[in-house]
Formats: sequence, structure tokens, C-alpha cells
Amino acid sequence: MISSTRYFDSEGDLKADQKALNAERNAKISGYYDLPDTQSALLGDLEVFAKRTAGFDSVVVAGIGGSSLGAKAADRFLRHLTQRNNKKLLFLENGDPIELSAALESVNLHRSFIFIVSKSGGTIETISIFKLLLSRLGKNATDSSCAEQFAFITDEGSPLDKLAQNNSISRFHLPKNVGGRFSVLSAVGLAPLKMAGYDVERLLEGAKAIRDDFFKDDPLGLSAKSSFIAKSGARVNAIFAYSNSFEEFVKWYVQLWGESLGKLDKHKKRVGFTPIGLIGSVDQHSFLQLIMEGPLDKSVTFIKVRDFRRSVAVPPISLAGLEKCDFANNQTFEKLINSQADATLEAIKSVGIPVDELIVDRLDEYHLGALFMYYELLTSLVGVKLGVNTYDQPGVELGKQILEKKFK
Amino acid sequence: MISSTRYFDSEGDLKADQKALNAERNAKISGYYDLPDTQSALLGDLEVFAKRTAGFDSVVVAGIGGSSLGAKAADRFLRHLTQRNNKKLLFLENGDPIELSAALESVNLHRSFIFIVSKSGGTIETISIFKLLLSRLGKNATDSSCAEQFAFITDEGSPLDKLAQNNSISRFHLPKNVGGRFSVLSAVGLAPLKMAGYDVERLLEGAKAIRDDFFKDDPLGLSAKSSFIAKSGARVNAIFAYSNSFEEFVKWYVQLWGESLGKLDKHKKRVGFTPIGLIGSVDQHSFLQLIMEGPLDKSVTFIKVRDFRRSVAVPPISLAGLEKCDFANNQTFEKLINSQADATLEAIKSVGIPVDELIVDRLDEYHLGALFMYYELLTSLVGVKLGVNTYDQPGVELGKQILEKKFK
Repeated sequence: MISSTRYFDSEGDLKADQKALNAERNAKISGYYDLPDTQSALLGDLEVFAKRTAGFDSVVVAGIGGSSLGAKAADRFLRHLTQRNNKKLLFLENGDPIELSAALESVNLHRSFIFIVSKSGGTIETISIFKLLLSRLGKNATDSSCAEQFAFITDEGSPLDKLAQNNSISRFHLPKNVGGRFSVLSAVGLAPLKMAGYDVERLLEGAKAIRDDFFKDDPLGLSAKSSFIAKSGARVNAIFAYSNSFEEFVKWYVQLWGESLGKLDKHKKRVGFTPIGLIGSVDQHSFLQLIMEGPLDKSVTFIKVRDFRRSVAVPPISLAGLEKCDFANNQTFEKLINSQADATLEAIKSVGIPVDELIVDRLDEYHLGALFMYYELLTSLVGVKLGVNTYDQPGVELGKQILEKKFK
Repeated sequence: MISSTRYFDSEGDLKADQKALNAERNAKISGYYDLPDTQSALLGDLEVFAKRTAGFDSVVVAGIGGSSLGAKAADRFLRHLTQRNNKKLLFLENGDPIELSAALESVNLHRSFIFIVSKSGGTIETISIFKLLLSRLGKNATDSSCAEQFAFITDEGSPLDKLAQNNSISRFHLPKNVGGRFSVLSAVGLAPLKMAGYDVERLLEGAKAIRDDFFKDDPLGLSAKSSFIAKSGARVNAIFAYSNSFEEFVKWYVQLWGESLGKLDKHKKRVGFTPIGLIGSVDQHSFLQLIMEGPLDKSVTFIKVRDFRRSVAVPPISLAGLEKCDFANNQTFEKLINSQADATLEAIKSVGIPVDELIVDRLDEYHLGALFMYYELLTSLVGVKLGVNTYDQPGVELGKQILEKKFK
């Protein structure tokens, strides 16, 4: 399903690493470890829910950060799958008035089912957009028709949760000990993805497989890789994914990595790494030069797709004067892009930059679930080794406080 | 049009900086400085060309890196403008078979005008996609009907240029001394943007204004800012733009900054900075934590829009239990997002991270041209101060050589 090759020397202490993550898991410091099990109880509810709401043409998700990035990443990664229904998924994140206007013009709101997603239940962008949606629909939150068209995904007991409860609006909870950026395998991701016709059960199964593998014998080498990252001088950790399907996945990674590890450690020292998401071969024409000749402060993980399950061949046309491009003739574009990954990996490795490679068999729900869990476990392991609290985000509070003062 | 505030102390030597860039300009080391003047000669041709091709429904651009990022950035930045025609602009960049299939299904190729864009004239992705397009259209490059539907944008004398010449296909040249990442104000950007109905003359005018301002008295402080960047310990330079219209612009910036400055300097020392493109307020929920508490190795430039020219207000709805969000009621989303920029700037500044701010009056062609030139001049200035060749990209050749060998 996923295979992994590391081109740098590193050893982990697997027993110690398993113990450390088991300690987090058992003490319920973060609940994401158990989502593949606990959320399977949600699947039946979601089945019923999806049937009840099947008549809507579109699914609108009002949420930002951890409340949108996971589902967005999944929709981008999976949207080519033909078995899904043709409901449009639309994400409303910030308050850009141009974006909001264009988004609202692009759907028939009256034919849309709307998720309001906020862990705390009080995210200013999301609540303000909720008010806008109510106003555009000519509804009050207390109208009974609201209950038919809205669902809230939030922590149990949050203000949004109470509002739902008091007005018979559908509610989904994420576990309290699952932060936004670790929540894609909870209702935050599963509910909108299920409504859009994706196989969310397979998403959980892929995640479970990777988790169980790690706690068994770590065949993907997460222990060794996390030790290397925590100790190496690489301050920038890039993913170079050779498929456009990863465009939003790498943004999910950027949040996960940046927000989990960019912290004051127990000695109040500033630690963390700069995450970069690159798409091949496009970014060979952009960021590659900096990797090849710029400061040796980077590590790069290549991600390749073994089988795109869609084949397009370069036609055997020889253009006068351009015969040097004929080497790709009759080859598939799939082979071309994977060979570009191999060639770029070799080039980057040759200048002494630590690289590793993940090969994903297919772009489907199972493999996406696996990738989500792979990066979540890796993040937790590096967090343990840095000695930070991987699951909080105290640094974002100051800006929120300053914002509220500006309106007083 | 654009105003600038720096919240860090830095002085530049404006006379020396003007002299250095004038030397590059006069010695024609890079021709981008003169594009606002030289390319105005192209405007008449483009007017005729756009009329001749007005019957096509879509504009397809096959190109990658510097051959696509500028026009993509412009289309994303400007697409909300109502005066433009409704031709769809479609970019074909790499060989991802899923992306290629989906893109080709999304347009009627027979009703599309197609630009093949490659400075060298031999970019493997672009030439392979050109072959695919020919095959899908059932045409040969030598067919006379090809001349009606294709135009090539390339260096004079390149293989692609000769192919066009021999088959009466329309050709546009970019100046030889203008590299891909500095080429958006040449035919590379102007031709597809003109066909899509944008006011490319205003694009050139905005760029010209910024350039002339710099060579006069540098009101935006490019000299001081570039000195600071070159000398400061900030290895990561982030743009935090508070409008989704900048989503592709920041990718253009990433290429410009990374590929121009990530170099061996004259002492063969590896220099350069990691460019990061962030969108507010979305990335306050992603990357901000790392800036606030992670290593102090970053500088941040905030970009705000003074007037979005599209106003959406937060309805005055008070939701039970969510009264703390009522501070935004009756305010515009425009005010909310700009206040978020201000609050985040204050928060980041308070922990000692160097920040500056650009305020752009409006999201139109004139201001986009100004921003393009602002960042190009800044790049050149930092390049001079680092002692690198800002305009080449020797580091990307190795990967290309390895790729060709893989097919032998």
C-alpha cells in the first residue's frame, strides 16, 4: 500500500517510541490515535444521515484551519474517483468579500446542505459566515427549517453545540481530545466526505492499518525518520509530491507540521521546522534551484504514485528541430512524471540533502487514510523528541485578543 | 496606489542601489526592467491578434514554471473583474495523467485557442503536451489549420520558433535577456491575458510607475528593505496576503524569490532564502503558531487591500450563547479581514519578528503590474547584495540530464 525508502542514515529506538506514543494514547492526551476505531461507530449514523440529506445538490462547509483543511485535502485527492456522487463540495473559510461573493454565486444555497464546523464553537470567521448564510436564506437559527438544512460539527458542550441542541439542529461531536488539525478522521472530515459520496470507511481502514503497523514493527520506519528529523540540522522539511492530487494535502501537512511542532519546548526554547509543500514536476521549475544550490537547511520527502489508474500516452510525433524531446514518445505521462521524481530525487541526493521516498499504490480513500495517519504519527514522534506539547497552539491567541480589542 | 510601512530599522544606500540596478539595466543583463516600455509596442499587435481569435471560447496555455506562473497569478488576481470577456483560461503544466485528463475534458479543444509557451523551446512537459493536443485535435504541426489555432511564445531562434516559422504559426518572442520568472510583463503573460480580456496596458503602466519611482526617490523603500533582508538572520521570508486573490501570486513570488536568490555566491557559498506564501485569515489557523513560537528565522510582509470594491456585511444576528462574536455584527467582512491583518501584524511584531506592510489600493491590472515590478526589483536588489547571478538557474540542469538518461 505505502512503501518507504530512506536515503539517510538514522536509527530510532522503536520500543521507546512505541512506549511514548502508547503513553499519549492511553493517557488520552490526544484522541486521534483511536479515531479509526471509535469513529467506526459513527459510520451507521452517517449512512442514515447521508440518505436523509441525499436530495441536496451541494454540500457547503463553513470552517477554517483544522475545520476545513482535512476535508479539502481529501476532496482534492479523491475527486477523480468515478464512483462518488456528483454533489459539489464548497468550503467557506475566511471573510474575503470577493471570494465569499463568488462562492455564494456558485451554488444554489436553497439546494445546499450546510455544515458549520468549529471545534471551539466560536470561531469568528465561521460564526460570521453562518450569520451570512442564515441571512441569505432568510432564516433564523430557531426556525424549524434550519434543522433540515444545517448540521453543526463541534465539541460537546460548546456554544454551537448548545445552539444546535436548543433548536433540534443535527450535531456531530469530535472528541474533546482531538484538535482541529488531527480531526480529519473524526466527524469533521467524515461527515462532509460521506455526504459527497466518498468511502469514509476505507479512509478509517487505511489509517488503522498504518497505526497498527507502527505499534507492531514499524515497517515504514517512522521511528528512525522522526529521530533523524528531530536531530538533523534541516530546519525546512519539504514534501515533493508528484501528483496534482496532493495540492491540498500538502496544505494539510503544512498546518499539521507547523502548528504542532512550532513551539516553546520545556526550556522555553523556540523549536520547530518550516514545512513546505511542493508539487512535481511543476515545482522543479520553481523551488528546485533553491534546494540544489541554496543553504543546506532542508530535507525532502518525495511522494510518488505507483498506479494513477488513468493512462495518457505521449503520441509518437516527431517535431522538426525538437527530436531531443522524442525520448518521451510512446511513453505514458505517468512514466514521465514518475521518472521526473526519480531524476529529481537523485539530483537532490547528490548534493548531500537528506531525502526519503514514499510510494503510494493508488489515489483512493484507503491510501489517503494511510497518509493522514502516517503524517500524524510522524508529527507525534517528532513532538515527543523535541519535548513540546504537540497538540496545543497557544501562539495564536494573542492575535485573537488584539482583534477583539480593535472592535471595542 | 501602493503604500509601504517597515517596522524594522534599516537603511539602504539608495544611490548605490540605483547605480547597481542601472548597471544591470544598461548592460542588458536582464531585460525585465524595460518591459513596460518595450512591450507597449506589442499592444497593437495583441489588439489585432485578440480580434482575430475572438471567436474561440477558451484559451489554453501549455507551459510550466515561468511560462505559466505569471499569467496564472494574474488570472487569479483579476478574475473577479467584471469588464473582462468570459473566455476560460486553462493552464496545462505537468504530465499528471489525472489532471491532464480532467483538464482536457473541461474544455472543447476544437473551440480553444492554444498557446505553447517555452522560453528554450524544448521543455519536455510542454512539448509532450503539445503533441497530445495535436493528437487530440487530429492535426499535424504542418497543417495549415494549426496556424489558425496555435501560437508559440518562445525565444527568437529556438526550435519552437523555427517550427512556427516553417509552418506559418503565430509567434511571439520574449526578449532573450528576460528569464521565465521575470517574463510575466512580456508576451508570455500579456498575450494570453489580453485574449482573456484583461487590460494589459494597465498592467504595464502599473509596473512602469513602480520602476520609475524606484529610480527617482524610492518612495516604497526598496533599497532599505533589500538591505535588511540581505543582512538579517531571517532565512525564511513569508508573504501574508489578506485576500484569496493572492493565492497564485504568492506562488509566482515563491518561484521568483527561490530560484533567483537560491544560489552559489561568488565564493561558492550557498545562499538564499526560503520563500513562503500565506493567505490571511486562513493561514492564521495554520502557519501562524510556527511564526509566533518557532525559531526566530523568519520575516513577514503583510499585504492588505484598501478597497475590495465588493462589500459584504456581517448580518446583525445575535446567536444565543455566541454573543462574544457579535463584535463583528454590522461590520463588513472587508473590515474584519483587514482588522485580522492588523491584529496578526501586531502580534507577530510583538515577539520581535521583523515585519513590514504593503497596502494595495485595489485588485486590478494596474496594481498587479505594480506588485510584479515591486517584487522583481526587490529580488534584483537582494541579488546584488548577496553577490549572486539573479537571472540564471544552473541547479535545475542536473535533474534534466538524469531524466534523459533514464529513457536511454
